[in-house]
Amino acid sequence: MSATGITQTLASWAAGLSRNTIPSSVWHQGVRSFVNWLGCAVGGSQHATVERALSALSRFSGPPKATILGRRERLDELHAALINGISSHVLDYDDTHLKTIIHPAGPVASALLAVAEGQPVSGADLLTAFIVGLEVECRIGNAVYPDHYDRGWHITGTTGVFGAAAAVGRLRGLDTQRMSWAMGIAGTQSSGLREMFGTMCKSFHPGRAAQNGAAAAFLAEAGFDSSERVLEAPRGFAHVVSTKQDFDEITQGLGERWEAELNTYKPFACGIVIHPVIDGCCQIHREFRVSARDIVFVELRVHPLVLELTGKREPKTGLEGKFSVYHAAAYALLRGDGSPEAFTDAAVGDPEMVALRARVKVEVDPAIHEASAHIAVTLSDGRRLQRSVAAAIGSLEKPLSDKDITDKFQRQTIPVIGSDATNRLIDLAWQLDALPDAAELAQAAAQSCP
Amino acid sequence: MSATGITQTLASWAAGLSRNTIPSSVWHQGVRSFVNWLGCAVGGSQHATVERALSALSRFSGPPKATILGRRERLDELHAALINGISSHVLDYDDTHLKTIIHPAGPVASALLAVAEGQPVSGADLLTAFIVGLEVECRIGNAVYPDHYDRGWHITGTTGVFGAAAAVGRLRGLDTQRMSWAMGIAGTQSSGLREMFGTMCKSFHPGRAAQNGAAAAFLAEAGFDSSERVLEAPRGFAHVVSTKQDFDEITQGLGERWEAELNTYKPFACGIVIHPVIDGCCQIHREFRVSARDIVFVELRVHPLVLELTGKREPKTGLEGKFSVYHAAAYALLRGDGSPEAFTDAAVGDPEMVALRARVKVEVDPAIHEASAHIAVTLSDGRRLQRSVAAAIGSLEKPLSDKDITDKFQRQTIPVIGSDATNRLIDLAWQLDALPDAAELAQAAAQSCP
Repeated sequence: MSATGITQTLASWAAGLSRNTIPSSVWHQGVRSFVNWLGCAVGGSQHATVERALSALSRFSGPPKATILGRRERLDELHAALINGISSHVLDYDDTHLKTIIHPAGPVASALLAVAEGQPVSGADLLTAFIVGLEVECRIGNAVYPDHYDRGWHITGTTGVFGAAAAVGRLRGLDTQRMSWAMGIAGTQSSGLREMFGTMCKSFHPGRAAQNGAAAAFLAEAGFDSSERVLEAPRGFAHVVSTKQDFDEITQGLGERWEAELNTYKPFACGIVIHPVIDGCCQIHREFRVSARDIVFVELRVHPLVLELTGKREPKTGLEGKFSVYHAAAYALLRGDGSPEAFTDAAVGDPEMVALRARVKVEVDPAIHEASAHIAVTLSDGRRLQRSVAAAIGSLEKPLSDKDITDKFQRQTIPVIGSDATNRLIDLAWQLDALPDAAELAQAAAQSCP
Repeated sequence: MSATGITQTLASWAAGLSRNTIPSSVWHQGVRSFVNWLGCAVGGSQHATVERALSALSRFSGPPKATILGRRERLDELHAALINGISSHVLDYDDTHLKTIIHPAGPVASALLAVAEGQPVSGADLLTAFIVGLEVECRIGNAVYPDHYDRGWHITGTTGVFGAAAAVGRLRGLDTQRMSWAMGIAGTQSSGLREMFGTMCKSFHPGRAAQNGAAAAFLAEAGFDSSERVLEAPRGFAHVVSTKQDFDEITQGLGERWEAELNTYKPFACGIVIHPVIDGCCQIHREFRVSARDIVFVELRVHPLVLELTGKREPKTGLEGKFSVYHAAAYALLRGDGSPEAFTDAAVGDPEMVALRARVKVEVDPAIHEASAHIAVTLSDGRRLQRSVAAAIGSLEKPLSDKDITDKFQRQTIPVIGSDATNRLIDLAWQLDALPDAAELAQAAAQSCP
């Protein structure tokens, strides 16, 4: 209970950081995170979750200053932050800070780009604020993970609100005191239960974190005060929501080690826990092109967490398919893919998939690393195709290249805004830090949309 | 972990309750709670906390359909719910469900009256929804109190969001499934840290609970789905935020025992923990009219919680004065009052108060009931004036009468909207259940305002 000055230290760093001190590798990772987020937000923008949120809440929107990415509607900045945050996460295809399984870009970027439509912000300033937000969010996550997550908190929501507040606070030029208030106002709104996984509320969490974090910054700017030690106080965030409080994770090495540099981008549209299985099955598909009728059975050996999180034997919907390692393996073996197309209702209901996933056997072994998987496919001709994946594509060891991110972006956005708008948007997005006005990106992400 | 159907049971009750089955005593207590809330919201409406929230967030408001009570501004229904919720709690003068120390009316009534300006709602329907919301909120509080509060959660915020969702869900005619979604969407936004006490964020909690609960109901209505067991699931509300989960408190005796009937109304504008001291000191003031210079010292004997919560020896601001039993006792002895006037910066800085509170001695004794206090005032002429308070005015044992509530209302609203508007408003408020259109009340509460 004796930690002091934690919130102040972080707030002071967030308010005062000079852009020139950000290493170029971090700067570029920031751009990658932003580009990946933008593609996901456009890609998810037609989802029923987004439609229903708009149908419920648009009537309460203020002046329509901000773009709903991938759509024609415009809402006030706070509502746009909410909706874009939902869109960016709804396909479970966004990004992951593997140390905490926070999906970091959604809450922060959704808040920033929306606010950037209400005031002039250069791309470089937006990127600086984005990197600050990612850092704040992930460091707070490090301080309480895994206990906080194990207790049942959806850490993307609970820490994302701090990231959004710090990032928008930075855009608004808050001093240290007001930045600490912004974090306080954010922290006292921190929320999001894991019980919501599998429902529309899961993607609501990063959306609400974006919206509430941005509101926290505007409130603090107006002199709405708060605790100046929300993180470390006995009845503050870390003690209330977690049994673990490692405050050094928040304050040590600020500006030296960068959590923002550790972000990874999902090659597959589901929780990372089954990415090794999907990666291995895709490899077998590409190498052997086996057909369903030739497969007698499939054996998977994985960490126990895989079945705990994705043990659904008979998924009925696309969403349930994300929580079925059986379906994900079958689809990857037959189609070589784990993109959002793998998790549609049609894909999950495909009789060929239904039949094959019944022949998938899963053996769990605590000795296997969470990031690894072993796959063996037994064929009717007696052959046994095997693949071991030590680290899946998209992991820190095997990161997506910039081109991979562009490919993923195009694959998501072309069906929504078409090829021409996609090409213009992806070019702009990679040049984020050179844009005189970052809002240009938002407007480009609504061109030619349905 | 084996509790099942808790959320469904409560949602089904909230959606299906017939107004005619509400006992008349509960019905009247509902009116009292509403009247008390309305006076507090008008009374707090000029506070700096409200000003700053408006200054930060008005720019994001949608169509101005709803009244900011006691003010000229109008905002969309969700923003009005937020601001009115802040106003109603900002003077710590509202109401208390003593079993859980929830201040129940704020989150529920602030949501309901704002929503009633966006759609036609009779006073009786609003009152029914209000009673439903109070019941939902307090029963959920019972299930997790005191562990939940002890962990550091501001229970008015964390449970208020459920109450607001259920109440607005009721107004919107949600069926059981959508009502359970509304509770799920509410629960996954549940938040509010006790670390915020003493800052503007304390009253932000009931405001945000009102706003977020109302939004949850609108989302559920639009088919935005959620868990249908947010209360009882292993990673649902009760398990995540508390070590105690007494689900019988939620489901047993629904429609038979009524938590809404147990609401109490504050005669003094501070936490109830020092109400016995203030009551006793006011009694001594009325009986003996002692002056400061005649008092040698004051001795208080109280439960240890009094010093834990209100042990500030040298408060500097009105707000800090609420957390100083020394100040509260001195002011009550000299002025016979514990209304918001007792907790202004001027009152706290009055040299006579500063001098007298230095002569107040507090002895704690765990054997003394939390609701009791013993006061002894030693005078320079050798007399010793004593008073023991077993239960303070405003408690369940000594409730405020309807006339007391009217007096309290007038005392708060006359300085804001004047006598004429106050008289019209209080008459209307007591007739809540006969009003064809409840929105009339909101509009009357903004007449003649500054």
